[in-house]
Amino acid sequence: MLNKNIQTFIGCDCDYNDARIVLFGAPFDSTTSFRPGTRFASQSMRSESFGIETYSPYQDEDLTDIKVFDSGDLELPFGIPEQALLDIEERTQTILDDGKLPCMIGGEHLVTLGAVRAAAKKYDDLHVVQFDAHADLRNDYLGVKLSHACVMRRCHDLLGDGKIFQFGIRSGERDEFIFAKEHTFMNRFDLGNVSKSVQNIGQAPVYFTLDLDVLDPSEFPGTGTPEAGGVSFIALLDAIKEVSKLNIVGFDINELSPVYDTSGRSTALACKILREILILVSHKD
Amino acid sequence: MLNKNIQTFIGCDCDYNDARIVLFGAPFDSTTSFRPGTRFASQSMRSESFGIETYSPYQDEDLTDIKVFDSGDLELPFGIPEQALLDIEERTQTILDDGKLPCMIGGEHLVTLGAVRAAAKKYDDLHVVQFDAHADLRNDYLGVKLSHACVMRRCHDLLGDGKIFQFGIRSGERDEFIFAKEHTFMNRFDLGNVSKSVQNIGQAPVYFTLDLDVLDPSEFPGTGTPEAGGVSFIALLDAIKEVSKLNIVGFDINELSPVYDTSGRSTALACKILREILILVSHKD
Amino acid sequence: MLNKNIQTFIGCDCDYNDARIVLFGAPFDSTTSFRPGTRFASQSMRSESFGIETYSPYQDEDLTDIKVFDSGDLELPFGIPEQALLDIEERTQTILDDGKLPCMIGGEHLVTLGAVRAAAKKYDDLHVVQFDAHADLRNDYLGVKLSHACVMRRCHDLLGDGKIFQFGIRSGERDEFIFAKEHTFMNRFDLGNVSKSVQNIGQAPVYFTLDLDVLDPSEFPGTGTPEAGGVSFIALLDAIKEVSKLNIVGFDINELSPVYDTSGRSTALACKILREILILVSHKD
Amino acid sequence: MLNKNIQTFIGCDCDYNDARIVLFGAPFDSTTSFRPGTRFASQSMRSESFGIETYSPYQDEDLTDIKVFDSGDLELPFGIPEQALLDIEERTQTILDDGKLPCMIGGEHLVTLGAVRAAAKKYDDLHVVQFDAHADLRNDYLGVKLSHACVMRRCHDLLGDGKIFQFGIRSGERDEFIFAKEHTFMNRFDLGNVSKSVQNIGQAPVYFTLDLDVLDPSEFPGTGTPEAGGVSFIALLDAIKEVSKLNIVGFDINELSPVYDTSGRSTALACKILREILILVSHKD
Amino acid sequence: MLNKNIQTFIGCDCDYNDARIVLFGAPFDSTTSFRPGTRFASQSMRSESFGIETYSPYQDEDLTDIKVFDSGDLELPFGIPEQALLDIEERTQTILDDGKLPCMIGGEHLVTLGAVRAAAKKYDDLHVVQFDAHADLRNDYLGVKLSHACVMRRCHDLLGDGKIFQFGIRSGERDEFIFAKEHTFMNRFDLGNVSKSVQNIGQAPVYFTLDLDVLDPSEFPGTGTPEAGGVSFIALLDAIKEVSKLNIVGFDINELSPVYDTSGRSTALACKILREILILVSHKD
Amino acid sequence: MLNKNIQTFIGCDCDYNDARIVLFGAPFDSTTSFRPGTRFASQSMRSESFGIETYSPYQDEDLTDIKVFDSGDLELPFGIPEQALLDIEERTQTILDDGKLPCMIGGEHLVTLGAVRAAAKKYDDLHVVQFDAHADLRNDYLGVKLSHACVMRRCHDLLGDGKIFQFGIRSGERDEFIFAKEHTFMNRFDLGNVSKSVQNIGQAPVYFTLDLDVLDPSEFPGTGTPEAGGVSFIALLDAIKEVSKLNIVGFDINELSPVYDTSGRSTALACKILREILILVSHKD
Repeated sequence: MLNKNIQTFIGCDCDYNDARIVLFGAPFDSTTSFRPGTRFASQSMRSESFGIETYSPYQDEDLTDIKVFDSGDLELPFGIPEQALLDIEERTQTILDDGKLPCMIGGEHLVTLGAVRAAAKKYDDLHVVQFDAHADLRNDYLGVKLSHACVMRRCHDLLGDGKIFQFGIRSGERDEFIFAKEHTFMNRFDLGNVSKSVQNIGQAPVYFTLDLDVLDPSEFPGTGTPEAGGVSFIALLDAIKEVSKLNIVGFDINELSPVYDTSGRSTALACKILREILILVSHKD
Repeated sequence: MLNKNIQTFIGCDCDYNDARIVLFGAPFDSTTSFRPGTRFASQSMRSESFGIETYSPYQDEDLTDIKVFDSGDLELPFGIPEQALLDIEERTQTILDDGKLPCMIGGEHLVTLGAVRAAAKKYDDLHVVQFDAHADLRNDYLGVKLSHACVMRRCHDLLGDGKIFQFGIRSGERDEFIFAKEHTFMNRFDLGNVSKSVQNIGQAPVYFTLDLDVLDPSEFPGTGTPEAGGVSFIALLDAIKEVSKLNIVGFDINELSPVYDTSGRSTALACKILREILILVSHKD
Repeated sequence: MLNKNIQTFIGCDCDYNDARIVLFGAPFDSTTSFRPGTRFASQSMRSESFGIETYSPYQDEDLTDIKVFDSGDLELPFGIPEQALLDIEERTQTILDDGKLPCMIGGEHLVTLGAVRAAAKKYDDLHVVQFDAHADLRNDYLGVKLSHACVMRRCHDLLGDGKIFQFGIRSGERDEFIFAKEHTFMNRFDLGNVSKSVQNIGQAPVYFTLDLDVLDPSEFPGTGTPEAGGVSFIALLDAIKEVSKLNIVGFDINELSPVYDTSGRSTALACKILREILILVSHKD
Repeated sequence: MLNKNIQTFIGCDCDYNDARIVLFGAPFDSTTSFRPGTRFASQSMRSESFGIETYSPYQDEDLTDIKVFDSGDLELPFGIPEQALLDIEERTQTILDDGKLPCMIGGEHLVTLGAVRAAAKKYDDLHVVQFDAHADLRNDYLGVKLSHACVMRRCHDLLGDGKIFQFGIRSGERDEFIFAKEHTFMNRFDLGNVSKSVQNIGQAPVYFTLDLDVLDPSEFPGTGTPEAGGVSFIALLDAIKEVSKLNIVGFDINELSPVYDTSGRSTALACKILREILILVSHKD
Repeated sequence: MLNKNIQTFIGCDCDYNDARIVLFGAPFDSTTSFRPGTRFASQSMRSESFGIETYSPYQDEDLTDIKVFDSGDLELPFGIPEQALLDIEERTQTILDDGKLPCMIGGEHLVTLGAVRAAAKKYDDLHVVQFDAHADLRNDYLGVKLSHACVMRRCHDLLGDGKIFQFGIRSGERDEFIFAKEHTFMNRFDLGNVSKSVQNIGQAPVYFTLDLDVLDPSEFPGTGTPEAGGVSFIALLDAIKEVSKLNIVGFDINELSPVYDTSGRSTALACKILREILILVSHKD
Repeated sequence: MLNKNIQTFIGCDCDYNDARIVLFGAPFDSTTSFRPGTRFASQSMRSESFGIETYSPYQDEDLTDIKVFDSGDLELPFGIPEQALLDIEERTQTILDDGKLPCMIGGEHLVTLGAVRAAAKKYDDLHVVQFDAHADLRNDYLGVKLSHACVMRRCHDLLGDGKIFQFGIRSGERDEFIFAKEHTFMNRFDLGNVSKSVQNIGQAPVYFTLDLDVLDPSEFPGTGTPEAGGVSFIALLDAIKEVSKLNIVGFDINELSPVYDTSGRSTALACKILREILILVSHKD
């Protein structure tokens, strides 16, 4: 008898009960203000992941030795951000309640808010580490408060001062940079101070959100708002190694928009980075 | 002294006070369920319109002889459909109140609801003529009621039975076709019965909404949900000539998504059709 | 507990035991002489099928009422056509042995040979109905006998004279057209004589192979060797309705190469045609 | 000893002395007002011609039976139209002086003027048959007289009234259509009156210029200014059969712009049409 | 009453009389020898500029605090370089006469000659600082003297020895490099010696021309002749900071060809660089 | 009398007898497991080479001073790797027998095996220097032994331990890295140890194979399997300068897949690298 066609991110095919990490996709981009398309990221990453290897020469480890379950994509309602965030929060909470690590593939950056809400419910002193080209600290965007451009501001509403660590930021309104000076730890332009921040955060629970546009558009053109002057894959990998030393309770990777990169290398890079993160985070246990 | 850079659809540069028709763009696609991108339609059409001529050999008339004012694009809030519809309704109402014909360039098809709301306020017995590949008669889409897939159902909520005339429909859920049998006049697959419907509608006020995906995807690939088996440009032009005999009080052209057509011919065709409609409608006066 | 991510062609999610039709992909294009890429067809069709509806207004039937099982893709060895054909033959035979109808998504046209070999083993008097722009009757191509350009010649080696019915052929070497005059029933340029051939074939078992490049490239640009002067979607649909009256024992749809069509409409059309065939063929029972 | 890499249009490899027809490319597009790119047409057609067959099932003839020499591309100076036209005129004259038929692959339509000048020198009563979407009858374009948009007007300057037969015209300024009524035979929208015109022209020497944008953009998207409402490949082929009955002394095929068609079917169609013309014209001898 | 649709580069909307800097586009690419398309740069930059912010974190300044007027695009005659240059010269002269700084968006690099001619009329000791991958020092290109490949040679004809400073040059004919040794200050491969040259130039009036292909094609693929081995955005920004210390009397940014970059990041980078230059240059006052 | 259209890589037009280096293309990609397309590399490089200069400012030498003959492309049978390798071996042997240096343009990396077989026949102690992102050391790939993913393993079968020097490797299965430790000299991630290896190899005959995906995908996106974290053009050029000091008896450049890079810069870079290699290698004589 023939089998059903099960599709996972490469090497992420263990059973749910055995899994330490649970993947899910959050294909939502309704508030994207410039060029939409991140809704296709999770599906594209699963398909294209078979073009990379499961083995990481950077860590001399193999993804097949890690226990990851891929639960597929949420079916999110386009045009109703609040409902989409509730669905994401619920999925994240289920995974956390089962004692597993949630790993979300966005979607626009707004999806992070749903996961952070779930994590903040469970962990009192939640910190957020954000790698991003954009500050995402606006209070509203054309009157919209639940916008990708406001997602870190909404996280701040929830978590308060001193909990958000921002790296690689090189774009935003003047007011966002002013806000950051008072309320977050913002490191502009590169990932230089990550290891120092890691020491400061210590053993606090951390949600890690990786907006892939922190990368230079030359290496990662497949995103809605490419910002020149970003970091390299190697620099990103090194910084993630630092972050993985923290007490990560959840993480996401977002803002891949495959349609803008006809070479496919943005999706390939996103897959490679996800492989590295999954291996790194599993080391913690 | 140098002039400011005023950008209009080709030939649409008369003063507001003199204008019979007022153009505006509604760049909104937040509820698009499959492939977004219609937000770029109005800007793209203005730019590319300079690749066509103002003269129509089909009618032996020139767009420069018609009085049209292009008021640019609305700045709509992505992710809040209800607010976007209010902004569209307000703009439409302003134009109607000034005794002019509103011509909206979408955007996803949902934008039509804003304009129909304004027209329905002014005209008691408003009818809607819809050219479209899709029925757009769902009650909700993944729980969303203000969705492009529900726009004609929402118009029906407003206008009631017997007021909506649908042509070219070749896709939808079974329930939409069942609904149509009871509540609208639906003509499937082609534009065959347009002239008969024109007679039936008579002198009632009509809002005309043209979803460009009624065209065959071979002629119009630049749309989010291409549906094989559509009508030709020539057939569409003939049908629009019929519709223009009606008492048109407002109209729109929507669902152009330029990014999916690298040849640019979809935008060129949309421009050409808009030129023809503008000339046709102006004949009525 | 969360579910695994099962991916099927839209609406094809019944259990294997209940299924009347079994889908599988044959992602192989190693012998493609001009522009490769059909290997991506089956995966692309599954993803994009969620952009069409399960309901067919052409037949007033819904794919969800049909029992189809999607068994995913074969993993075929690139560069060894003979082995790939064995794998295809084996999968086809399994499905036939279980009393179900095999439906294969190519791949280049060579994959048909594997399925025809399996069908010919089971059915003595097997006929083949081919819709195609190209004759595919070369004895060899640059010395290669197992080439997409030779697939119908290889079928003729197996089945003999008078068993192959070719429609829509508009390209080939002179020798192929000479061969056809003696050994096959070839109908050039269009699908005009399909209903007559259906009568002649009568109740003989038939394998139906649909090379999608029989369509005009304007409607179906996503193929390796586009040939101007093809048939329309509507004409194809009508002809398939005729073919479905035959005693179909297996069928395939091939030569979609998604990468050459940035509009996505070729994949959308392939999905729509597959929906129609699945419904039509299931009516036979 | 190894051979040099000679590149020709498929099947066009006879010696110059034996040739009845001589091909050359005129890769020039400096006056293109909207979207340039036709400079790549001749090179692209040679490369892609190996994707079609030399055998024509439409005529049951093979290009390998015809004697055609491909002399490669002229190296034309971008930015100096007058010099480019002189180079084209010289090449055409050489071919005519050697008693052979010149066949030029454009480039933008302006290149036709160079060839017509050479033909008009040799043939007193030269007529021009033009298939085109655009009238190309402007007296100047933004002050430029040697522009693609003026090429037929310049031919009229040279040949006078009643010598230019235009077909398929569906775009132009009002003044061009007025000019045509007095000075040319213009047939709008389609190729309906070709056979009648062929009778009228009789045995006069004819230069045939085929602007490929006469085709509908659905079948031929690869052109700078796509105009909806064009003719089909089959209609074009039939009309060319009529034209080939005339006393053709030179011909060209122009306005293919490969970059705008990622499917490659525009180049494939141009190759196929050229194959048909070469066979048709050679029948005359 | 509704407003006209005024389109400017983001934040460049002050009145002409108040403006310190005046933008204009020079959409011309008729002499481009390889791949045309720069004619679309200025229009594309205006549209896409709304994807960047007006605030520069690199300088902690906001474009909205600078007084810039965007006068739109010149309408240049394709195919007549001399006339196009006259139009550019006239526009530049108008701006200079009004005591404002001209900022031109090309177009191919030839457009710089028109602006330099105007600046050289007003300023006796005009120097030119050029950032470019190509020397542009040919005496002619296929016999054409007014070619993009000759633009610096033509500037040298006008300004004489020792006035042209070239940086980042990594492509050219051997003769161009020989010419440079005697007549210009050429710095090959990178922007290393900019600060030293700035000291040498002192207070002389300087026209700054930025050919964006000086950037590495990985960061800036959207150009007609990409040359590997270029500089990074950060290195370019640093060098521009140095140049801005000079007595700039006019400047341009050229050779963006948006169509070759489907990711849009080339246009985004061009916008970002222009934002930085505008802020930097305005600091001088 | 007009000349035939001879097409060569720029500047490679000397006579065969005078040539020191002989170019040929090997357009084969039948075993490509992920995304095919390298078959178009050689043709694309010839066409696009006219966008670069023959002069190298890096070496102050001109390609026109080097004696290179371009013998065009082999016509290889798609789908029969063993036959394709025999054809490549034969062509390489012919060139070697004539005392010239073979330079092959792939195709997928498997083509290297054909050339290495010919070189190993002539030179007893043949070494191979490989620049590559991938180890290519699998024993088989889905059961296929003649696969691009196995090409260095097959070379090892032929040459034995200690003869293969690998640089830039950053992807492979765990087993490949284990194999390399015992049987080859593998340098991971970059080209750091090239000069040291050059010393170790000394005067042994060397076949140099350059898989262009060793470059970072930001600089070279046009390849089937882009791997983030690669080397820059400048680093590659420096390393090739080192390699050119060896006793090179043959070399190739492979895995360019032009279709995945719409900017054309990958082909341009491949042309530039080939220019540099040809000049460097010719210095040895």
